[in-house]
Amino acid sequence: MEKKLYIAVIGGHRCDEQTAKIAEDVGRGIAEMGAILVCGGLTGVMEAACRGAKSAGGTTIGILPGSNRKEANRYVDFPILTGLGYMRNNLVVKNADIVIAIDGNEGTLSEIAFALQMKKPLIGINTWDIPGIVKVRDAEEAVEKTKFSIFNF
Amino acid sequence: MEKKLYIAVIGGHRCDEQTAKIAEDVGRGIAEMGAILVCGGLTGVMEAACRGAKSAGGTTIGILPGSNRKEANRYVDFPILTGLGYMRNNLVVKNADIVIAIDGNEGTLSEIAFALQMKKPLIGINTWDIPGIVKVRDAEEAVEKTKFSIFNF
Amino acid sequence: MEKKLYIAVIGGHRCDEQTAKIAEDVGRGIAEMGAILVCGGLTGVMEAACRGAKSAGGTTIGILPGSNRKEANRYVDFPILTGLGYMRNNLVVKNADIVIAIDGNEGTLSEIAFALQMKKPLIGINTWDIPGIVKVRDAEEAVEKTKFSIFNF
Amino acid sequence: MEKKLYIAVIGGHRCDEQTAKIAEDVGRGIAEMGAILVCGGLTGVMEAACRGAKSAGGTTIGILPGSNRKEANRYVDFPILTGLGYMRNNLVVKNADIVIAIDGNEGTLSEIAFALQMKKPLIGINTWDIPGIVKVRDAEEAVEKTKFSIFNF
Repeated sequence: MEKKLYIAVIGGHRCDEQTAKIAEDVGRGIAEMGAILVCGGLTGVMEAACRGAKSAGGTTIGILPGSNRKEANRYVDFPILTGLGYMRNNLVVKNADIVIAIDGNEGTLSEIAFALQMKKPLIGINTWDIPGIVKVRDAEEAVEKTKFSIFNF
Repeated sequence: MEKKLYIAVIGGHRCDEQTAKIAEDVGRGIAEMGAILVCGGLTGVMEAACRGAKSAGGTTIGILPGSNRKEANRYVDFPILTGLGYMRNNLVVKNADIVIAIDGNEGTLSEIAFALQMKKPLIGINTWDIPGIVKVRDAEEAVEKTKFSIFNF
Repeated sequence: MEKKLYIAVIGGHRCDEQTAKIAEDVGRGIAEMGAILVCGGLTGVMEAACRGAKSAGGTTIGILPGSNRKEANRYVDFPILTGLGYMRNNLVVKNADIVIAIDGNEGTLSEIAFALQMKKPLIGINTWDIPGIVKVRDAEEAVEKTKFSIFNF
Repeated sequence: MEKKLYIAVIGGHRCDEQTAKIAEDVGRGIAEMGAILVCGGLTGVMEAACRGAKSAGGTTIGILPGSNRKEANRYVDFPILTGLGYMRNNLVVKNADIVIAIDGNEGTLSEIAFALQMKKPLIGINTWDIPGIVKVRDAEEAVEKTKFSIFNF
């Protein structure tokens, strides 16, 4: 198998339309660069990112908190059941080479913390203001910074 | 996304050639019926089953005990990192609609136990003698019984 | 702190009176030898063993599958919440220096498998017939074999 | 068993003397109010808090990331092995009725995130500046606020 890059998009399971648009564009960008999208598999930012990735023919993996595959949003190609509840946040980040945070609440904060702890490249759009996050303004810049991270990987 | 079936092949990370042949044939059969192969992602029975699935153009998911994607055998399409050690045995079974046990030691026994606990269809070839396992003699019969389970799913 | 020994009693959350009597006697024996009783914290064999340990002034730890301390039986001194579901079976065994299996179903089988995998001394009374279990007939013999394991620890 | 209160102290495994002094005072205060101290079981803030609790005759539980009881600091009464790595951060918080954050880095941030997610009372001294943390200046005030939380529990 060729080596593929895994990029996580993290963010809340509920979000406004503007945030969903950003997540969708980021997801599309991830697919266009040939990387695999990893996320928590649920609604909101996760679903929008997956939808974007699928619109560009990408592959999406959703690492779910529960034990029922139907919890996954419909743009998840491979739902992974964990039964770990919010502990699965750690796995979303663990499975990523690069992490992109979009908006988000406490769950996203735990993922940001784990990304920093695991010393993964971490890009953020309209999200928590935590040192170590590479802040960008929009989806386009997030995708650019991600490509830059890959070259330095 | 269309609904896909996930079939786990469980067995030891070391096995003799005859067992590997059985695992490979089972893996190929899984791919030929259009299902996704789930396994623990390592060597032995897991690797042989993945090799078989890939030889028939199938898709393979390896749920790894560690945090390094390189631990996956080379026939794993999607390595999932858990860092859970042997607790990940539970996730291999959790992600399966049907479980096929081939040979195996204590790790496989824990997966058999979880499969029985989760009331998943469980087919066994040359493995632990535990009530509840549908015993079959060879790969062909395992694939047949698996198809039968699907029809009754 | 002095070094204490942790002994796990594993078995089903439902059991008949005779099994409960055995579990209670084993729990009392564990307390009398100054060891700490570890278990899954629920009813059945777990509760009977904890009751026995408390009757002799022992200390009991219950590693629970859920996130609510009230799930613990009332003889658990220290309920540990995991939210891991049956994955917590692995932790019950991991926290034990010696494991005693009494009766039990699939959950107990998964714990037996993990105990064998972790190469822990494993004593069994009326439980699964798995190679590697030191089989004993009654609580008294289980306590004796446990003491023998300690001397060879 | 009487119902006991579990209070977690979270913070880094390395800290300066002033922070250790605060953690020790908080630990002593927790013991003096009859609560059980829960922590990650390692060095730094965790060890100082445990030392304080033991100096007042309290009880300490350390939920460890690894599988070796010797990783626990010597003031931990009951080391709980998880093998979960940093995922165990979730369990430290899950086992607490009230959480007190002292100083800390990314690991502590993940615990703060989980505490907010689980809607647990969360008190902070010289720690991350995250909305939802009840900020206090010193150990004395932390203990007071904790007592106040108990009355409103």
